Amino acid sequence: MPGNTFGSLFRLTTFGESHGAALGGVVDGCPAGLNVDIAAVQTELDRRRPGSTPLGTARNETDKVEFLSGILDGTALGTPIGFLIRNSDARSADYDHLKNVYRPGHADRTWEEKYGIRDHRGGGRSSARETACRVVGGAIARQLLALQGVRVEAYVDQVGDIRLERPYTVLDLPSVWKSDVRAPDEAIAQRMTALIEQVRGEGDSVGGRITCVVRGAPTGLGEPVFDKLNADLGKAMLSINAVKGFAFGAGFDAIGLRGSAHNKMHSGGILGGISTGEDIVFDVAFKPVSTIAKAQGTVDRSGRTVILETQGRHDPCVVPRAVPIVEAMTCLVLADHLLRNGTARARDLAPQQR
Amino acid sequence: MPGNTFGSLFRLTTFGESHGAALGGVVDGCPAGLNVDIAAVQTELDRRRPGSTPLGTARNETDKVEFLSGILDGTALGTPIGFLIRNSDARSADYDHLKNVYRPGHADRTWEEKYGIRDHRGGGRSSARETACRVVGGAIARQLLALQGVRVEAYVDQVGDIRLERPYTVLDLPSVWKSDVRAPDEAIAQRMTALIEQVRGEGDSVGGRITCVVRGAPTGLGEPVFDKLNADLGKAMLSINAVKGFAFGAGFDAIGLRGSAHNKMHSGGILGGISTGEDIVFDVAFKPVSTIAKAQGTVDRSGRTVILETQGRHDPCVVPRAVPIVEAMTCLVLADHLLRNGTARARDLAPQQR
Amino acid sequence: MPGNTFGSLFRLTTFGESHGAALGGVVDGCPAGLNVDIAAVQTELDRRRPGSTPLGTARNETDKVEFLSGILDGTALGTPIGFLIRNSDARSADYDHLKNVYRPGHADRTWEEKYGIRDHRGGGRSSARETACRVVGGAIARQLLALQGVRVEAYVDQVGDIRLERPYTVLDLPSVWKSDVRAPDEAIAQRMTALIEQVRGEGDSVGGRITCVVRGAPTGLGEPVFDKLNADLGKAMLSINAVKGFAFGAGFDAIGLRGSAHNKMHSGGILGGISTGEDIVFDVAFKPVSTIAKAQGTVDRSGRTVILETQGRHDPCVVPRAVPIVEAMTCLVLADHLLRNGTARARDLAPQQR
Amino acid sequence: MPGNTFGSLFRLTTFGESHGAALGGVVDGCPAGLNVDIAAVQTELDRRRPGSTPLGTARNETDKVEFLSGILDGTALGTPIGFLIRNSDARSADYDHLKNVYRPGHADRTWEEKYGIRDHRGGGRSSARETACRVVGGAIARQLLALQGVRVEAYVDQVGDIRLERPYTVLDLPSVWKSDVRAPDEAIAQRMTALIEQVRGEGDSVGGRITCVVRGAPTGLGEPVFDKLNADLGKAMLSINAVKGFAFGAGFDAIGLRGSAHNKMHSGGILGGISTGEDIVFDVAFKPVSTIAKAQGTVDRSGRTVILETQGRHDPCVVPRAVPIVEAMTCLVLADHLLRNGTARARDLAPQQR
Repeated sequence: MPGNTFGSLFRLTTFGESHGAALGGVVDGCPAGLNVDIAAVQTELDRRRPGSTPLGTARNETDKVEFLSGILDGTALGTPIGFLIRNSDARSADYDHLKNVYRPGHADRTWEEKYGIRDHRGGGRSSARETACRVVGGAIARQLLALQGVRVEAYVDQVGDIRLERPYTVLDLPSVWKSDVRAPDEAIAQRMTALIEQVRGEGDSVGGRITCVVRGAPTGLGEPVFDKLNADLGKAMLSINAVKGFAFGAGFDAIGLRGSAHNKMHSGGILGGISTGEDIVFDVAFKPVSTIAKAQGTVDRSGRTVILETQGRHDPCVVPRAVPIVEAMTCLVLADHLLRNGTARARDLAPQQR
Repeated sequence: MPGNTFGSLFRLTTFGESHGAALGGVVDGCPAGLNVDIAAVQTELDRRRPGSTPLGTARNETDKVEFLSGILDGTALGTPIGFLIRNSDARSADYDHLKNVYRPGHADRTWEEKYGIRDHRGGGRSSARETACRVVGGAIARQLLALQGVRVEAYVDQVGDIRLERPYTVLDLPSVWKSDVRAPDEAIAQRMTALIEQVRGEGDSVGGRITCVVRGAPTGLGEPVFDKLNADLGKAMLSINAVKGFAFGAGFDAIGLRGSAHNKMHSGGILGGISTGEDIVFDVAFKPVSTIAKAQGTVDRSGRTVILETQGRHDPCVVPRAVPIVEAMTCLVLADHLLRNGTARARDLAPQQR
Repeated sequence: MPGNTFGSLFRLTTFGESHGAALGGVVDGCPAGLNVDIAAVQTELDRRRPGSTPLGTARNETDKVEFLSGILDGTALGTPIGFLIRNSDARSADYDHLKNVYRPGHADRTWEEKYGIRDHRGGGRSSARETACRVVGGAIARQLLALQGVRVEAYVDQVGDIRLERPYTVLDLPSVWKSDVRAPDEAIAQRMTALIEQVRGEGDSVGGRITCVVRGAPTGLGEPVFDKLNADLGKAMLSINAVKGFAFGAGFDAIGLRGSAHNKMHSGGILGGISTGEDIVFDVAFKPVSTIAKAQGTVDRSGRTVILETQGRHDPCVVPRAVPIVEAMTCLVLADHLLRNGTARARDLAPQQR
Repeated sequence: MPGNTFGSLFRLTTFGESHGAALGGVVDGCPAGLNVDIAAVQTELDRRRPGSTPLGTARNETDKVEFLSGILDGTALGTPIGFLIRNSDARSADYDHLKNVYRPGHADRTWEEKYGIRDHRGGGRSSARETACRVVGGAIARQLLALQGVRVEAYVDQVGDIRLERPYTVLDLPSVWKSDVRAPDEAIAQRMTALIEQVRGEGDSVGGRITCVVRGAPTGLGEPVFDKLNADLGKAMLSINAVKGFAFGAGFDAIGLRGSAHNKMHSGGILGGISTGEDIVFDVAFKPVSTIAKAQGTVDRSGRTVILETQGRHDPCVVPRAVPIVEAMTCLVLADHLLRNGTARARDLAPQQR
C-alpha cells in the first residue's frame, strides 16, 4: 500500500522528484465554499523556498504554485484541488558522481534496496524538496482552520546547544519571520545565526528543535484509541525529513516527574488523545543534515569503501526552513480532525443542521 | 471517521470499555496458513495482566482470550480472527464517586466534551485496559514476523531519574521478564523497584522510559513519503495511554550534534523512512500516571473546584506493564509494513511467485 | 489488503465462519448519543434467521445477538460497538463428505486456491450465514437514518418468471413481512410461494429479484467521482452472496430508450452520483442457489469427476431471506454517506454548529 | 470523506473540471521497475478522445498526457506517477446560458445542492471529460497486468435495440477498434452506426450496452466478504457517467433459471467473490445521454419551468467512446486486486520471496 497520501477527510496526495519535471499534489476534501487566498498560499511557499533565508541552500527555485482545478473565482468547489510546482533550477549533472555511491546518513541505499531502482538526482523523491507540496496543502488547511479561529505557529526553539529560555507564552510569535533563523527572541536568534554560519564554515551541519503552538483549537479533536490527536501529530512530524523525535507537553521531561507535580503542569493541550481547548504545544527534534561538505567515508554500489566530497547545495541547519513545514503538517492534521470530529455526535445529524 | 482500527494490510480493530461486558477485537489480513500458537498469545497477555507484576494495580483480571473465528485446528484461514476478553473483576461501584467529577490529568473531561456522554466506570474506553486487545493482535503479528526472523523486544530503560547505563547492545534482553520492573540489569532493576515502592507509599506516581529493539528486520520496510516506518512507529507509540514522547536513533540528543559526528552514530535502523536492515531502536517516554492516592483539587461537571481522593486500583508506575504493549504495537506496525513492502516491486509479480 | 470492513465513517467489520464458535462484528463510527433499540436489532435479525420463513433452510439457529461494548443504558457512547452471535446448531459432521469435494457453483475451489486452506464446514466464511452480522450493523445504521426521516424498505419483486406487475409506488410495502415470500401483493406472493415449493420438491432451486426503495433520503448523498451513491450501493449489493446484477432507475431497460423518453422517467433518485431527494429505487438479481438436492457432477481435490448428492440444509430460493440483507446493506451505505456528506460544505464548520 | 481516489494498493487519484485549466491525476502504488510505455498510454487516451470516432461530440481536444514524476527513463520508480492533461478547446462561453438552469437528467442540480456552488461550464467535474484521467491510470494498470498475461477487452454489445447475436467467445475482439461504433461484428456494427446517425438527426440520443472480457486472470483475485471481485468491478463500472446497471455471468437472466441449469452455465469467471481462472465476463448498461438537441422543459435556480435548447457539443450515444473507459476501470480493479492478493498467504512471506 503506497504512502503518498496524508489524512482521511481532508486529504493531501503528493508526487514529484527533486529533479523531475515538476512536483505537485491533490487536496481532496476541502469543503466547498471556502474562500481560497492563493496569494497567501504562495507566501507560505516562499517561506520554505530555497533562498528564503541566507542560512539555507544556494539552490534557486521560484517555487511558483499553479492551481489547476477545484477553485473557481477564488472559491473552493468541493472538488479536488490539483496543483503544480515546476522544477526550474535542477542541475542534475551536479549529482552524476552520486549515481553509484550511497551518501552516508541518507536514504540512497535504503530506497534502492526497497525499490530496486533509485533516482540519484538530488535524492529523487527522498529529497526534502517534496515538502513544498505539503506547504501548499497546509496553507489551504490553514485557511479552513481560520474559519474556527484556529492559529498555528511554529518557531525555532534550539540550534545546537543554543536554546530559547522563555516558554512560548511570553514570546512574540508573529515576529518569527523577521529573523533569518525563525526564532522569536532577537538576541538568541543572533547567536543561533552565528552558530549556523560557523558550522557552515567548518563544512559541517548542526541539529535543532522546532516548537509548534496551536491557539484556538476547539475541544474534541482526536479519534481514540488509535487516531489520538497526539498520535496523528506525531506521525505528521516524524514523516518530515531529518526528524528524530516528537514530544508534547512535558515530553521526555515527564519521565523524571511525580504525578502530583505533572498533573499541575501544562498537558500539551491534549488529554486522552483529545484536544482540551487549551493551547496545543509540541516539540520536534531535527538531526544535523547528513550532507556535509567535509569529506566522509561511505560505500558504493559494489560495497567498496570510498571517500565522498559533496558538491550539491545544502543547508547547514534545516530548522529555519523547516518551520513552515512543521506548520503545514500541523494544519493538515488539525483540518482533518476538525472534519472528523464533525461526525462524532448524533445530535449534529438533526435535519436543521444540514 | 472513527479511530479504532490500526494498520492497513495487517489490521487490528478493537472494542470494549474498561467495565463493560467484554473487550475484544478483529485481526484482518493475517495471511492464511500461519500456524497460530494460541498459548503464546495468552502468555503475552499474561505479561500485561493486572497482577502480572507486584508493582501494578491490585485489580485482578484473568484476561483469558477466547478466539471465535479465523483459526481452524491452529492454522489461520485467511479470514478475520475475532477474539474476546471478558471483564470479570469490574467493580463499577468503585467509580460512583466519579460520575460527576473529572479526574485531573485524565481524559474524563475531553471525552465528555467530545461525545456528550461518558462511561465513568474506570475511564470507560479511555482506560489502558483497552490495550489488552492490542497485545492479542500484536502477539499474532509477532508470529507472522517470526517467519522472517524478526524479533521485537522492549525493556524499561528508566524509572524517574534512575536509568540503565549500558546501551541495548550489551544487555541481556531475554532476561527482562525475570525482573518485576522489566529491566535487563538486575542491580538497577532493584533500585527502580525500590523507587516505585517508595512512590506508592507516598500516594504518588512516577514516569518512565521504555526502549524497544527490533532485530532481524529486513531492509525496505516503510512507505515514504508519509508512511515512513519511523512515522508509523511513532504514531503507534503515541497512541498508547500516558505516552508523551517518541524518539529513534539519537533522538533529541541529535539536536546538539554536528552532522560529521551524527553520521557515524547508529541511525536507529531507519533512513529516509525505510528500514536499513540494522537493529531498529527507539525510545518511548511515559508520564507519571495521573491517578494518585493523594488528595488533589479538580473540577466537577458544574465547574466547581472539588478535592478528589481516588479509591480505584492503579499502578504507581505504568512502564513495567507497558512493556508488552510497546512490543505489541511494534509488532503490528512491522507486520503491516512487511505486507505492504511485498507489493513494492514489479518483478515480484512474475507468475511463478504467486 | 483484507476485505472484511465496509464503509468509511460509519464502518462495519465482521468476522466468523458458518460452523465456528461465533460470528460477530464491530460497528465503528456510530455517533454518540444515538438511542440504540436493541430489541429492534434482534427483530431484524429474526427476519433473516434460518427458520424465519417456511420457504428457507431447516437449520435452526436462534441468532441471538449479544452486545459487548459501545452502548451504555441504551445510548451509544461514540465508541466501537462490539457484538456476537454464537453458532449453536452447527452440525459440522454434515459436511464431512465435502472435505475433498468442491461443490459446483460454490466458492469452495476458489477460496482454497486463494488461501491454500479452506473451512469446508458449511462453506466456512463464504457461507451466507456471514450476512447475519451485516443485518446487525444495518439495523443500527437504520436507527441513525431514522433521525433524518430516512426509511429503507425492500421486497421480493420476482421469483423465477413470476413478477409483480405494479411499481413500488402503488404497493403496500409495510405488508411485506406478512407473506412468507416477502412480496407485497398477496395473490402474486401465493404464486411465488407455490413455485418455490414446487422447485423444492424437484430438488432444485430458482432465482429471484429484490427491489429496494429508500424514502426520505436528503439530497446531496454521494461522493463523486468514484464514490457515487449508486456505485457504493452497487458494490454493497454485489457483495451479497448469490447476487449477479444491480440496476437503478430504468436499469438495463435504459439501453433501448431514447434520451427524450428517458429524461422524463424516474432517475432512480440519483443523478451524477448524488441523491436527488426523490425516492431511491434499485433492483438486485439473485441467481438460483447452487446447492441443490439433485445429484450433480463435480470435481474433487485430486481433479477427478465425482457425483455429489448434497445432504446439508439449504434454501430453494434465497430472495425471501435476502430481503433484510438488502435492506441492511442499503442502510450501511446511506448512514456512511450521511456522515460523509456532513463535511462537504465550509459553512457547516462555523463554530456555532459544533 | 472525499471520493476522488480509487483503489487501495494500486491507487488512482484524479482532479480537474471539464473547462478548468487542466485535468490530471496521481497513480500511487505502481510497483517499481515496471517498464512504462508512454506511447501506449497516449494511444488508449486517443481512443477515448472527443473526435476519435465520427459518432461522438465535435469538441476537439488533443488530450495529450504529460507525465511529471514517478518514471525515469521509461521505468517506474515506485514513487507516485503524476500526470496532466491540459484543456485546450474549452469554449466556456457556450455554457453561459446554463449558469442559472439545471439540465434535465444531469447532475447540475444535485451538485449545486450538495456543495452550494457549481461549475456550470460543461458540467464542471461531473462531466465525463473527467474519465480521461481514468484512461491514463488504467493504461498503466494494463501494463502491470500484462506481466501476468492478463488481457482486458471490451466492446459494444448493444445500441438501442440492436444487439450482437454471438457470444464473446466467437467474436474477433481485437477488431473492435476498426469499427466506429466499437463492435466486433461488421454487419451489426453498420446497423448500430446507422441507428446512432439517425438518432443524431432526430436531435435525440440512445442507450447501449458494453461487454467486457478479461482473459488470463489468475485464480484468487477478490477479497471477501465485502471486497469481492464482482463487487469492486460493479462499483468501478457504476462510477462511470451514464451507467445504470452492472451484471456478470448470467446476470439478470439468472432470475428465471433453475439451479440445475445455472450451475452448468458460465459463472462470469467469479465464484464466491474470487476469480476462478476462467474468462471474466460482465455487462454494463448505459442510459441514453441526457443532453439532447431537442428542446426540453426543465427548471432554473429560482424553481421556474423553462424550455432548454442545448448548444454544447455532445455524443448521441456514449458507448463507442465509453469502451476504453470500461477497460480502464477494469484494469484498475484488477491491478489493485493482483497486488492485494499478494499478501493472502503466509508461505509467500518466506525470506527468499522478497
